[in-house]
Amino acid sequence: MTGRLAVIGLGPGDARYVTPEASAALAAAAIVFGYAPYLDRVPVLPGQERRASDNRAELRRASEALEAAAEGGSVAVVSGGDPGVFAMAAAVCEAIESGPEAWRRVDLVIVPGVTAMLAVAASAGAPLGHDFCAMSLSDNLKPWATIERRLAAASSAGFAIALYNPVSRARPWQLREAFAILLRALSPETPVIFGRAAGRADASTRIVPLKAAAAEPADMATLVIVGSPETRLVLRPGLPPLVYTPRSAVAVTT
Amino acid sequence: MTGRLAVIGLGPGDARYVTPEASAALAAAAIVFGYAPYLDRVPVLPGQERRASDNRAELRRASEALEAAAEGGSVAVVSGGDPGVFAMAAAVCEAIESGPEAWRRVDLVIVPGVTAMLAVAASAGAPLGHDFCAMSLSDNLKPWATIERRLAAASSAGFAIALYNPVSRARPWQLREAFAILLRALSPETPVIFGRAAGRADASTRIVPLKAAAAEPADMATLVIVGSPETRLVLRPGLPPLVYTPRSAVAVTT
Repeated sequence: MTGRLAVIGLGPGDARYVTPEASAALAAAAIVFGYAPYLDRVPVLPGQERRASDNRAELRRASEALEAAAEGGSVAVVSGGDPGVFAMAAAVCEAIESGPEAWRRVDLVIVPGVTAMLAVAASAGAPLGHDFCAMSLSDNLKPWATIERRLAAASSAGFAIALYNPVSRARPWQLREAFAILLRALSPETPVIFGRAAGRADASTRIVPLKAAAAEPADMATLVIVGSPETRLVLRPGLPPLVYTPRSAVAVTT
Repeated sequence: MTGRLAVIGLGPGDARYVTPEASAALAAAAIVFGYAPYLDRVPVLPGQERRASDNRAELRRASEALEAAAEGGSVAVVSGGDPGVFAMAAAVCEAIESGPEAWRRVDLVIVPGVTAMLAVAASAGAPLGHDFCAMSLSDNLKPWATIERRLAAASSAGFAIALYNPVSRARPWQLREAFAILLRALSPETPVIFGRAAGRADASTRIVPLKAAAAEPADMATLVIVGSPETRLVLRPGLPPLVYTPRSAVAVTT
């Protein structure tokens, strides 16, 4: 007998960003897997089992959840933000591809959520209002040369750029190096947004020009958005500036 | 006296994707502006005024909403998906930048939502599980040459690509031409996802190889996702295939 696995996006922080669809999928689960801080966000239901795991153990968590679902359980895996953006949905698909045949028969449902870059963009204006890309700055799972190539391609082609996983204790220099690469194609005045703890009560948004971005503090709870050549800064009396990328664009010549 | 303007993302379709934050912001508004089909999704509250407008009239809608807020009103503008992705938030920022000084004093709040590409990706697996970009294929507001340049840059640098506004009655050939450009850098077997009416009861997802994508029907309710060179197709007995982009990536050499 085959069960069901729901991979659920909790959105960027507080319960106010959890969609009704995500809440319903959570309520239907008998077992909920997840990285401990995400599990802590989920209301405890009577009789529901919880299995917390470490941040790094994505593939193992996916395999355990698939095993429980293949045995007939109603299983959920929770993810911060959207599960399809640098999160659990790809790990579950990887596990299905390389795992036992029974896992391919599991009724897999992925419930989308508000991913961090959308919450950070909303806090600053509309920096992702036109063509943009999203990249992970982690070189744990890809070569740094690939990241350099993508930063150069995206900035010179006129995309705004959202940087996930900009910094960790084991990766202290990558973000500074990324800004140096971006400065080759972009004006030093290009607006850069540092969004920390997006969607949470302690959320903060800072806006600095690209030339000063390397000196800004960032950590694992930070998401960075770098403007395109068209991104604009609008000053407002008594309010934080707005950063937005217009809906229209001119020709890219480089 | 200055009022408040909330630009609210309703998510990709049904009420089950409207976040509690969006519902609360809607309930607090005395006047709600929006493109008529989006307004139709919003529950009617007693005493709340509604002002529907045409799809094309984004800048005028933004200006009317800002005018009402500057006069002291509690105003909302609703947007499908996320307001910051090819939607109303950029139009509101444009109007603020070019409008009267009083509009800069309006208390502007942007409420993020689940944007269409996340719902379409979730319906197919995790095609946006690693680095990706989002582009509008509309050449109403930018030169077609800029779109060509960005398609070539994104595909050869290894990004998966989400295409918003792939087709309209006035733009019948652009999507076919985009696939032709992408075929220069990508394998003809690259998975392409056509997601229609994402998040609605009549949602559909079709997966075809890039070489056959030009023959697939698409309309204004379609969002297209083109895989990267690393995107994989996983066949499942009795279930639709999964499309996902692994969390790890190899070196890009082109």
